Order: sequence, then structure tokens, then C-alpha cells
Amino acid sequence: MPELRIVGIPGSLREGAYSSSLLRAAVELVPDGARIEVADIRGFPVFNQDDERAPPEPVRRLKEAVRGADAVLFSLNEHNYGLSAAEKNVLDWGSRPYPDNVWNGKPAGILSASTGRLGGARAQYELRQSMVFLNMFPINRPEVFVAAAAEKFDAAGRLVDETSRKFVREHLIELVRHTRVLVARP
Amino acid sequence: MPELRIVGIPGSLREGAYSSSLLRAAVELVPDGARIEVADIRGFPVFNQDDERAPPEPVRRLKEAVRGADAVLFSLNEHNYGLSAAEKNVLDWGSRPYPDNVWNGKPAGILSASTGRLGGARAQYELRQSMVFLNMFPINRPEVFVAAAAEKFDAAGRLVDETSRKFVREHLIELVRHTRVLVARP
Amino acid sequence: MPELRIVGIPGSLREGAYSSSLLRAAVELVPDGARIEVADIRGFPVFNQDDERAPPEPVRRLKEAVRGADAVLFSLNEHNYGLSAAEKNVLDWGSRPYPDNVWNGKPAGILSASTGRLGGARAQYELRQSMVFLNMFPINRPEVFVAAAAEKFDAAGRLVDETSRKFVREHLIELVRHTRVLVARP
Amino acid sequence: MPELRIVGIPGSLREGAYSSSLLRAAVELVPDGARIEVADIRGFPVFNQDDERAPPEPVRRLKEAVRGADAVLFSLNEHNYGLSAAEKNVLDWGSRPYPDNVWNGKPAGILSASTGRLGGARAQYELRQSMVFLNMFPINRPEVFVAAAAEKFDAAGRLVDETSRKFVREHLIELVRHTRVLVARP
Repeated sequence: MPELRIVGIPGSLREGAYSSSLLRAAVELVPDGARIEVADIRGFPVFNQDDERAPPEPVRRLKEAVRGADAVLFSLNEHNYGLSAAEKNVLDWGSRPYPDNVWNGKPAGILSASTGRLGGARAQYELRQSMVFLNMFPINRPEVFVAAAAEKFDAAGRLVDETSRKFVREHLIELVRHTRVLVARP
Repeated sequence: MPELRIVGIPGSLREGAYSSSLLRAAVELVPDGARIEVADIRGFPVFNQDDERAPPEPVRRLKEAVRGADAVLFSLNEHNYGLSAAEKNVLDWGSRPYPDNVWNGKPAGILSASTGRLGGARAQYELRQSMVFLNMFPINRPEVFVAAAAEKFDAAGRLVDETSRKFVREHLIELVRHTRVLVARP
Repeated sequence: MPELRIVGIPGSLREGAYSSSLLRAAVELVPDGARIEVADIRGFPVFNQDDERAPPEPVRRLKEAVRGADAVLFSLNEHNYGLSAAEKNVLDWGSRPYPDNVWNGKPAGILSASTGRLGGARAQYELRQSMVFLNMFPINRPEVFVAAAAEKFDAAGRLVDETSRKFVREHLIELVRHTRVLVARP
Repeated sequence: MPELRIVGIPGSLREGAYSSSLLRAAVELVPDGARIEVADIRGFPVFNQDDERAPPEPVRRLKEAVRGADAVLFSLNEHNYGLSAAEKNVLDWGSRPYPDNVWNGKPAGILSASTGRLGGARAQYELRQSMVFLNMFPINRPEVFVAAAAEKFDAAGRLVDETSRKFVREHLIELVRHTRVLVARP
């Protein structure tokens, strides 16, 4: 079986964001037979439909990376009980112009982290609603919400909470399994 | 009674967006005793928390406009079954840095337009969820979803559908009434 | 100022449900000047629109209790990431037949409890969406999600977690303040 | 290839509900190689966790029907911007007691009908959120929202709107395709 290529999408532009640290943990914890490459989401302007046919270079590179991947792994930050603007911006650029939606048909995993009590859950359900239109196929279980993030990462941004590491690993195993089913679809 | 100042927030950067045309209709249809000033949301970078304490000039102006308003009127576009990145970006910049959330306590109206069948409804419910955290007080009725927008505006972008105009007007009357109740709150 | 009458709506039919225990805590913690009376939601059949004009006696009593109240306090259980059937059933019976919607215009508070990590948050956002149609006016803050409920109540079902008690009390103070504003509405 | 068995779940107890008529249209429009059997959801009490280990006979029959099916087709009514109590009640009974969740792992289709403008869309997104916990695998496209239902069915309850019939058929074709992929999963 060929190695699966998973593109990892960060959820924040902030240096040292917990969601970026969580994505680095995923790169490390991915099971054999798959590999996660983290995309660069810096340098995107705010999506403007007037410019969708001539996206700037960073957007083009992101679209290329997603197009070539077997699956997508999102690592979200929750802002104001929803997706961060940075994350929504990546989704919107990647989906346009119609019908060049690079997310179309991709299996997906979803992680999130927050300093609060819900660990980004509200952002995850918003993303799942967008995925219906984008025609993505997210896994259901286990959901990974890293709450109280300040206690789960060390000073260098390494995920040190063993329970969280276990959930991330199980999430990735399920994403790989799910992707192999869907990649083989008739 | 002093005139109420309502700040209108566009939902799209596209020239000729239906949501912008809808906001212009609202400016025209607002009842006596209130006035809508449309904010400029161009020139915002994508929100990055690292920069929240030194927002660029266009963000500062938006925050000042909202701070000085008695109420907020959003006119939304739906992108990928959610808020547009442009709209979420305005919300996120306006809410930070903590506790300088300019949306805090504001009464709000919500309009939306789309070329599709649902008229932006999904974006409205996402906004309402963010409003819980932002501590805004949206009105409930009448909801205004301008569906099949291509048939409701003329070539100059004027809202010509009489039913839609009636709903916009009733929405604004309720927003004014609701704002007068909340502005007077003990 | 006359005493405010708040009707408390349980979210579960189970004996010993955490949401019912939470509602009893609210009865005890409500500030002076208001009183909570817990409604009885037992004995309701599943809502059938064919029967909405002749509701059975327990439904009639619930509708009367809500009609006579100044505000409503919901205490939710989350089932399958949404409102419990028991709770949705109470909402649906109370809203019909059109236009006899007893929830119309009522200020509302929302509490929830669950044994899981999110404390019923998903059920709360579903309820808020229904409230738009029902034309209710929920408060925003503080949200009360009693997570890991098994650790927060004693064997007799008393809420013993001090942080949770403080949040319930602050929620009720805000509900009373919010109700006084809305009851006085022009 | 063996014939696929799809269980159809009505969304309303009302005689002559549009959602029931829509489900009958689906029975007629299902492609060769699959068959839809409509479940009976009458006679259910409101879910009470105290009784989950001894469900009444109608609940037992529903659980048996779902367990034996390859896929599930929901036909929803929207009540108060959410799932009907009748529908949520079927979901909750079917999911309990833990871990006897009969919905677990099932592919699913979703139809809805309403007399309003949105055709039940809000109920569909609530169901999709519950499906994450229930571990169901809904298809994404085409979504079927039969709005303004009074104009789409004839006096005998037959779906006569050709566009709606086409969407129902395409939805079922995709459900069958999707089920064959997932049934074959490793």
C-alpha cells in the first residue's frame, strides 16, 4: 500500500498557537504508512471573490498541497465561538473559483485546542457544517478537544499530556483507516 | 429622544456584492429617529493575535465606529455554509484585545442575501452563536433572508423586490424598538 | 417592585437526573425578589400536531405555568449532542397551536449538566436556535455548563461544587436584571 | 451484489405529514438494487433513561429494523428550527442503552420538507450534529430541502414537483453508492 499523504492545516497565524503545537504533535504521532505535511497559511489576503481567479502565490501553494493530498487534518483554534478568521479564510480561498474546490471529496480529521473548558468544540461543529458544502468526509471518533491547553503543553510547545497524546494517535489511526476505505471507493 | 446611531457592517469585499446592496437598501429604509452609517471593512489584514494590540488604521477606525454606535446591523454573505472570512475577520478584530470587545452589549440586526435558496440562513445562525460570546443582543423577528438575490436587485444594485423591502423595513423598526429598550436598561 | 415569577423547566424524565438536581440548586440560589417554580413535565405524550388543539391535562398545566411566568429557566440534559427528546417535546407542545406560543417574548436562562466534558454545551446552542423562532430572549452570560457532573453533586443530589454554585447564582442575578429590563419594555 | 436494505424513518406523527409523503416518494424512486422499508414510529413513549433497558414493543421493533438495515434514510419535519420531538425521540431510544446504539456505523441519507422557505434545513444540520455522536455516515450531496411543500405534493400526498423528484432520486443514487463503499470497508 502506498504511503498516505495528509496535509495539515493550522488554525491560527499566532506564533506559538496551541493549535500549531497540536499539529506538530500529530506529525509525530501519525501511524506508519502515512505522513503529515503542515501547510503554510501565512501571507494570505482576506478572501475577495473579485480576485479568486488570480490568487496570490501563498494561496496557490496551499491549493496545490491540498490537491495532491489523500486526506486533510485540521487543527483549530476557536475564536468567538467559531472558526478563526484565518481558518475560514483558508477554507474560502481553497474552495474557489467554482468548481475548483480543492477540498472536494477529501477525507478529513479535526483537532482543536483552547485555553478554555470546551477545547474548541464549537469551532469543530462549524467546520463540520462547512464540510457538507465542501463535500469533505470527516471521521466521527474519537473527537479531540484539548481543553485547558496551558496545562497540556510544555514551555517548548510539546504536547505532554498523555491522555491527549493517546486521543490524537487514535484519531489519526481512524483517519488513515477511513481514508483507505474512501480512496478505494468505486 | 436622540437619534439612534446604527453602524452597518458589510459582509463581503466584492464590488457589487448583494449583501452590500442590501445594506444600502437598509440605509434608505431605516425609520425616522435612526440613521445607519456603513463601515468600511477594506484594508484589514487577516486577524493575528500577535498584532492585536497595534491594529492597523482601518481596524482602528472600525472599532471606533462600533464603539460610538447604539446598535449594529450586519449584512451577511454566506460562504461555504458559514460566515464569510471577511465578516469573521471583522468580528475577530473588533473583539480583541481582551477586554476591549467593541461589540459588547450592543443590540443587533442581521440581514443576509445569497443567490441560492436559503438566502444566507446558515451564516446568520453562525453569527448568532458568536454573539453569545461577544455579548450582543440580536432581535429575533422578522428574519431577513434574501434568497435568489439575482432576481431581487436591479442592474444598479437597488433592492426592487417589494416583499424583501417590507421585511427589511420591519426588521429595522424592530431593531430600533429593541435598541430603545436596551439603551434604557438599568 | 413585584416579585418575579420564573418557571423552571427540567430537561429529563429520569429520576435523579443531574439536570433536575441543578434546577433544585437554582431554586435555592435565586436572589431575593424572584422565585422559581419547577414545572412538572411528566405524562406528556410525544407531540403530534393532530392533537395540538386538545392537549392532555399535563400539557395544559405546563402551558398555564409558562404563560403566567415573567421568565423561564431551562435546565438541560444533552442527549446525542442535542436537546433531550423530553425537552424538545416540552418546547414543541408549548409552542402550538399557532399562534398560541406560550414561550413568546419570555426572557430566559439556560443551565445544563452532563457527566461528560462539555457539560451540555451542544444542547444549549440548539435551544438558542429554537429560541429565535420561539421569540425568547436568553441571557448571554455567564453560561453555566456543569461538566463531570458526578463529581459536583453529593449522593443526595445537592450541588456541592462551589464554583458551579457561584456560576448558577450569577446566572440568576443576570436573568433577574435582564427580565426587569424586558418586562419594562415600551 | 445483494440488494441493499434501507430503513426509512418518518419525522412526524401527524397523519398526512409532508415528510411522510416525501418518504413514500423515496420508496418509489429508489434505484434498482436497493429497497426502502418505512419504519413505524407510533406508540413510542417519551424517552426516559430509567426505562431504557426494557423498551416497549414498538421501540424494540424499530431497533430491530435499524439493526438489520444497510443504511438509514431520514425524512424530517422542522419544528421550532430544530428536529421534531418525535424524530429526536426515535434517535434517543435507538441509541440506548449504551453501547447498544443501533445507528452505529450506518450510512445515511436525509430528506426534509416544510411549508416554509427553508424546507427543513435547520433540522438537517441538527441531525448531522447528532450523527457525529451516533457515529453515522451521512452523504453530502445533493441536499434535499422541499420548501413550500404545499405546492409540491398533490391532494393525495404524491410528490408531483419534477425538480424535487429528480433531487430525491439523485440523493438515493448517492446513498446507494456511498453505502456500497462503506459496507465494503476493511
